[in-house]
Amino acid sequence: MKPRVVVVGCGFGGLWAARALGRAPVELTVVDRTNHHVFTPLLYQVATAGLSAPAISGPIRHILAGQANTTVLLGEVQSVDAARRSLRFEDGSELAYDYLVLAAGTVNHYFGQDAWAPFAPGLKTLGDALDIRARILIAFERAERETDPAKRAAWLTFVVVGGGATGVELAGTLAEIARHTLRGEFRRIDPHNARVVLVEGSERVLPPYPRELSEKARLQLERLGVTVWPSKLVTGIDADGVTLGADRLAAKTVLWAAGVAASPLGRTLGAPLDRQGRVKVEADLSLPGHPEVFIVGDLAAVEGVPGIAPAAKQMGKHAANNIKLGLIGKPGKAFRYRDYGQLATIGRNAAVAQIGRLHLSGYPAWLTWLLAHIYFLINFRNRLVVLIDWAWAYWTYNRYARIIIRNPG
Amino acid sequence: MKPRVVVVGCGFGGLWAARALGRAPVELTVVDRTNHHVFTPLLYQVATAGLSAPAISGPIRHILAGQANTTVLLGEVQSVDAARRSLRFEDGSELAYDYLVLAAGTVNHYFGQDAWAPFAPGLKTLGDALDIRARILIAFERAERETDPAKRAAWLTFVVVGGGATGVELAGTLAEIARHTLRGEFRRIDPHNARVVLVEGSERVLPPYPRELSEKARLQLERLGVTVWPSKLVTGIDADGVTLGADRLAAKTVLWAAGVAASPLGRTLGAPLDRQGRVKVEADLSLPGHPEVFIVGDLAAVEGVPGIAPAAKQMGKHAANNIKLGLIGKPGKAFRYRDYGQLATIGRNAAVAQIGRLHLSGYPAWLTWLLAHIYFLINFRNRLVVLIDWAWAYWTYNRYARIIIRNPG
Repeated sequence: MKPRVVVVGCGFGGLWAARALGRAPVELTVVDRTNHHVFTPLLYQVATAGLSAPAISGPIRHILAGQANTTVLLGEVQSVDAARRSLRFEDGSELAYDYLVLAAGTVNHYFGQDAWAPFAPGLKTLGDALDIRARILIAFERAERETDPAKRAAWLTFVVVGGGATGVELAGTLAEIARHTLRGEFRRIDPHNARVVLVEGSERVLPPYPRELSEKARLQLERLGVTVWPSKLVTGIDADGVTLGADRLAAKTVLWAAGVAASPLGRTLGAPLDRQGRVKVEADLSLPGHPEVFIVGDLAAVEGVPGIAPAAKQMGKHAANNIKLGLIGKPGKAFRYRDYGQLATIGRNAAVAQIGRLHLSGYPAWLTWLLAHIYFLINFRNRLVVLIDWAWAYWTYNRYARIIIRNPG
Repeated sequence: MKPRVVVVGCGFGGLWAARALGRAPVELTVVDRTNHHVFTPLLYQVATAGLSAPAISGPIRHILAGQANTTVLLGEVQSVDAARRSLRFEDGSELAYDYLVLAAGTVNHYFGQDAWAPFAPGLKTLGDALDIRARILIAFERAERETDPAKRAAWLTFVVVGGGATGVELAGTLAEIARHTLRGEFRRIDPHNARVVLVEGSERVLPPYPRELSEKARLQLERLGVTVWPSKLVTGIDADGVTLGADRLAAKTVLWAAGVAASPLGRTLGAPLDRQGRVKVEADLSLPGHPEVFIVGDLAAVEGVPGIAPAAKQMGKHAANNIKLGLIGKPGKAFRYRDYGQLATIGRNAAVAQIGRLHLSGYPAWLTWLLAHIYFLINFRNRLVVLIDWAWAYWTYNRYARIIIRNPG
């Protein structure tokens, strides 16, 4: 019987591991709790109605259909029993493995303030993105119907908590929607008067970037109409707004981009975790004491490796290669991260990029961002549709997916 | 002050009325409980994962943004007080009118068996379509994980109740998904073995069509792999299947295409209704005793006018023109339906069409259907994306929107 390899989670880490094992002499099972892989760098475009959900996602079993050794299962893994080499699903059934790649990623994390969650959705899944999209669109609709000026102002105030890449993208795009997309479509309100506030706890936005690029990002955000509040700590979020120490901001729409924590699945391993709940792995990405278990992507704590898609892909592929080495009795190799730089987009023609020693901002950075994303989307069949949607959005400022759907199911 | 015209509902009837009033010297308010108009003839494509929801819909306020006399409001009208010429919203607020166009359409109707609704969703809204899409995709996923053969067969049995145009479209497309789209993507089941049963109460599918075309539709359905059960009355639907008198069909997925009823808003008018709850209107489409109120689309009972999009458009435009005549003191004209024929699609290269005395089936009918829908989609910006998606789906049998999203909001 061929060795059984199980990959849990089909984000960038899991999918790249599964692909790298596509021709290996193993019996591969890929498990995810959704039926699709999401191109997460464009999730903010779904949340801001620029793209439809299917445009940035693909059915996992379709992506992997050509791999004859691969079975795809929809299911939620609740725990890993590393001693027994077995996984337990939500329905109590079990799945045994000889090798395991754990790529369960992260979940939204409210720093112990879970009561904030219903008022400030995070952006991790397509469901989150459609929820945020509906909230944004409904806020403008409610403002149009509201007669009380204070309540109307609260419907027209959008607070994004967290000035990392996701927060910067959301805030910049929100400002564009208010200033351009919705222009001329309302009669009782002027969407241009909408207020977008980006709150960041540290002293600058995009903290992992060089200070000079953070400054350029802030200037570009302000040019788009975003109010940037650095060095502000959120102390409360409720249905009517945000509290920041002594300050209070009345806002009916609050988006959470301030933090994620590693999947709780990591805790079931019984291994040492870091402060964010990530699993401290060996140099070859394996679980200490379990050379047959590999942790990749955002669930793995590896010094100097950021929580971005290219890093997850590299880890996924590396774990797969170490499994292939194991199959022929060879020891695994240590993981080395290849840093291709980092990119954050802010809005039309506005972005920052760091590629080695090269620092870009404004139009050149935005073009780099665009070309990079088109290149990486080429693995998806949807690239043509995405390109047309982008081209359309660029020339017209229109956002075609401005559809509020409340799924009853 | 200009006369206040209110249009309630923005399907084909309401939207065409609103457009026809775009340059009239009135203060026009368009109310809908969603923010979008849906191209309903393609709703079955969203339900069967061929198209994304935004591809067949457009934001109402964007469509009408160019009409300076028009205000769009998101809201749910709960009752009409024709005597006081006022509408009441879900939040208790009111809206007065001088002229009213009521285009509230239909709702799913279970012939008094509302307990069936959770087990057999109908297809009226984008939310319905995404719910049905998720149920279909989850059924195949559950079958892949199921080890009990009887339960597995129930997950692979799909029952469509109702052999009208929607039922025929859903059944034909479901059979195509099982036989072509999902081929090679599962390891433990063969989707080809899925059973699609179309149940129709009368003796033939597509009852409003000529008998010869009904027969051709049945043959095309059977060629696609659909089991057609005419003259079968459903007597029970539950979580595990459908009861048809003495027969029982174990099925985890049941779709309801057997009937709709007029919107309950019609009942609040205090006017005579027909058996389906539609309002019996005057020859000029006005409410008896209320020449300032017009009923259009599926909510209006007009002898010899079918419940299809072209009829609703014609009524909407006609009501708008009668209002314009009223503004200059002239009497309204009687509505005359122009019959351009009827079209129903079944699957790839399979359809039936009746255009006057011309009866088509198979490829010619399908091509007619395709060209007609492309033509009518031209009012939408999404036509290019839709065309690409269709071309892709045609050549590859792939359905790119196979994404299960459970919207938490």
